[in-house]
Amino acid sequence: MPELSSRSQRVPASPIRKLVPHAVAAKHRGTHVYHLNIGQPDIATPDAFLAAVRNWPGQVVAYDHSQGREELIRAFQSYYLRLGIELSPPEIQVTTGGSEALMFAMACAANPGERLIVFEPFYTNYAGFAAQLGIELVPITSSPKTGYHLPATEEIEAGLDATVRGILLCNPNNPTGTVYTVDEVDALASICRKHDLYLLADEVYREFCYEGELRSTLTLPDMEQHVILTDSLSKRLSACGARVGALVSRNEGVMQAALHMAQARLSSPSLEMIGAAAALDAPDTPRFIDETVSEYRRRRDIVLAGVRAIQGGFCETPHGAFYVMASLPVDDTEDFARWLLTDFERDHKTVMVAPGPGFYVTPGLGHREVRIAYVLNTADLEDAMNLLGEAVEAFRGVAART
Amino acid sequence: MPELSSRSQRVPASPIRKLVPHAVAAKHRGTHVYHLNIGQPDIATPDAFLAAVRNWPGQVVAYDHSQGREELIRAFQSYYLRLGIELSPPEIQVTTGGSEALMFAMACAANPGERLIVFEPFYTNYAGFAAQLGIELVPITSSPKTGYHLPATEEIEAGLDATVRGILLCNPNNPTGTVYTVDEVDALASICRKHDLYLLADEVYREFCYEGELRSTLTLPDMEQHVILTDSLSKRLSACGARVGALVSRNEGVMQAALHMAQARLSSPSLEMIGAAAALDAPDTPRFIDETVSEYRRRRDIVLAGVRAIQGGFCETPHGAFYVMASLPVDDTEDFARWLLTDFERDHKTVMVAPGPGFYVTPGLGHREVRIAYVLNTADLEDAMNLLGEAVEAFRGVAART
Repeated sequence: MPELSSRSQRVPASPIRKLVPHAVAAKHRGTHVYHLNIGQPDIATPDAFLAAVRNWPGQVVAYDHSQGREELIRAFQSYYLRLGIELSPPEIQVTTGGSEALMFAMACAANPGERLIVFEPFYTNYAGFAAQLGIELVPITSSPKTGYHLPATEEIEAGLDATVRGILLCNPNNPTGTVYTVDEVDALASICRKHDLYLLADEVYREFCYEGELRSTLTLPDMEQHVILTDSLSKRLSACGARVGALVSRNEGVMQAALHMAQARLSSPSLEMIGAAAALDAPDTPRFIDETVSEYRRRRDIVLAGVRAIQGGFCETPHGAFYVMASLPVDDTEDFARWLLTDFERDHKTVMVAPGPGFYVTPGLGHREVRIAYVLNTADLEDAMNLLGEAVEAFRGVAART
Repeated sequence: MPELSSRSQRVPASPIRKLVPHAVAAKHRGTHVYHLNIGQPDIATPDAFLAAVRNWPGQVVAYDHSQGREELIRAFQSYYLRLGIELSPPEIQVTTGGSEALMFAMACAANPGERLIVFEPFYTNYAGFAAQLGIELVPITSSPKTGYHLPATEEIEAGLDATVRGILLCNPNNPTGTVYTVDEVDALASICRKHDLYLLADEVYREFCYEGELRSTLTLPDMEQHVILTDSLSKRLSACGARVGALVSRNEGVMQAALHMAQARLSSPSLEMIGAAAALDAPDTPRFIDETVSEYRRRRDIVLAGVRAIQGGFCETPHGAFYVMASLPVDDTEDFARWLLTDFERDHKTVMVAPGPGFYVTPGLGHREVRIAYVLNTADLEDAMNLLGEAVEAFRGVAART
């Protein structure tokens, strides 16, 4: 039998999805599962999106331009201009979801065997993309106690060597919900300038910022050649299944290389680009986004109250995205998350959460944390958080007896 | 400025698309351009596809399963069963176009620095994917004189060393239209078994086989662990812009790794998977495919007659796909293809073709060949081929004078 490449064996199973078989089994037993494990919002995609797709008059679902549908590139340009960020069309590469933008960004920044710094806990899929590309992630750990804010500059610089080609920042952060301060982002930019590193910035949750100010990396002075931004419409337009994102950079070499990679895969999904362009440009989209963000703020507060109502539960207030990384008074959240699906129920209901260790590279970290995605309506979320509290109590009881 | 990774600089610009600016300029001058340069069919996507998308009753365009929409996996399973190939669902991974399937297949087969054998001329984008993944392609040249059939086993084996992890075969072939004989495919299988290599098989043009028999690699005995098949609905359903393909293998390790890669990018395009599932399963799809193939056979014959009507033009009869690699009596088809767009027109019309060198890795090859994609209706195609013949004469006149 031919040997499977070691790189493909290093692509981790999704820690968010690997409990799925247990969830399926629970549902077969008649137990309702509240999904707090995955960032799939329940909010309806804007009408403009689906209307544009439904009313598309074409007959041939043809390739679109490799750089992206022209009207979608213009829509991204207008969107960024509304944020005060001026971009020319060649600075925008439409991608098949934020996922592809991350692949392109990593491939531009680092050769196989080279490394990128990432702050853990981090969005697990970064590890999957890095493994596919033969890139190593260097984790620098942030702590629940500081609300997962960045470590001091010296600690970050201690992680650098000649093989490190860039720093990857997700802001607002998935999985922690942390919005980094302006000073933190500026400090990172200084490190990148000083050491000639790329700053790979994942800002897909940009609008989901409930307090404070979000410093977009596209506004950083003297960072035009360093910043490679990855964007996505999945959350902003509640259209996760429409695989539409973007890579944005003012670095011409990066954009040229990204275009070549895009040409290799020919086109992003045509019909979904049609919907995305219409929705991103629709006059009531800013209102849609505002309302969505207000709804998420209410949800965040429910989750936060829920975590804090658990004796021994802990979470600094996260200011963005739609995740909370909650510390729970259990020894192993992998066990706990599985137990929630295999052994717990109350009134035929249980909760699914994402165990913390999946968001860390460093072994041994995250065993007391879970990521909670607050993607359910407020009534369900209240119920789910109450359930979670009860479950923690019950699990501790089981643990104490065994 | 941080240094752009060398791997990303090695991703080639699409040779098929790099003449686009000249085509745009020609159109601005009022010249109609017949596009024979790119495999974008003009045939309407089946009604079932668009109807399913338009009538989808959902409100949230949500992530689907990373392995693919369940009904689409079942539709692929039924499709293969109609071909006499029995597959279980875990042997099918839905991908975002055939492109993603190729990336997954290559990443499973080879680590960075390792190599894959490919028969040149070959589908250019293989080089783009390989460069992104840090894989080197080892070209083994096939000749116009043999209709681009495979070289002898000894010649293929001479290209092997410990770093070669697999052989990549596109059958029916893009860009040559060659359908490899049963014996040729069997011989390749023997090489793979003997040397423990993967056989990466790109069979997206499977139905486009006008004469003779296509030996699918999925029917090869004792090759279950070797074959990684890439498939796509782009051509079969004339739905190139719907990014829906599949990776198929009976090798469990490969399928597990592919699923992990798929989990990292979360989901293929949801709406287009809905359309694809409906169309692949629709009762009249076999008829649609038959009619499409008959239409392409007529087109092939027009192109072939057109090439042969050119004095010094040459092409062995290709039996599949919808491409012809034609040898033309010009010194440099790169110059010729550009000249067609910048300097030639008749009755305000010209032709765009893909120059041969872009399909070769070995320098100096392909300068007398062009790839012609026969994706226009028969009347336009007749006109385009007549134009091409006149253009060759005119270009030779220009060349003789300078």
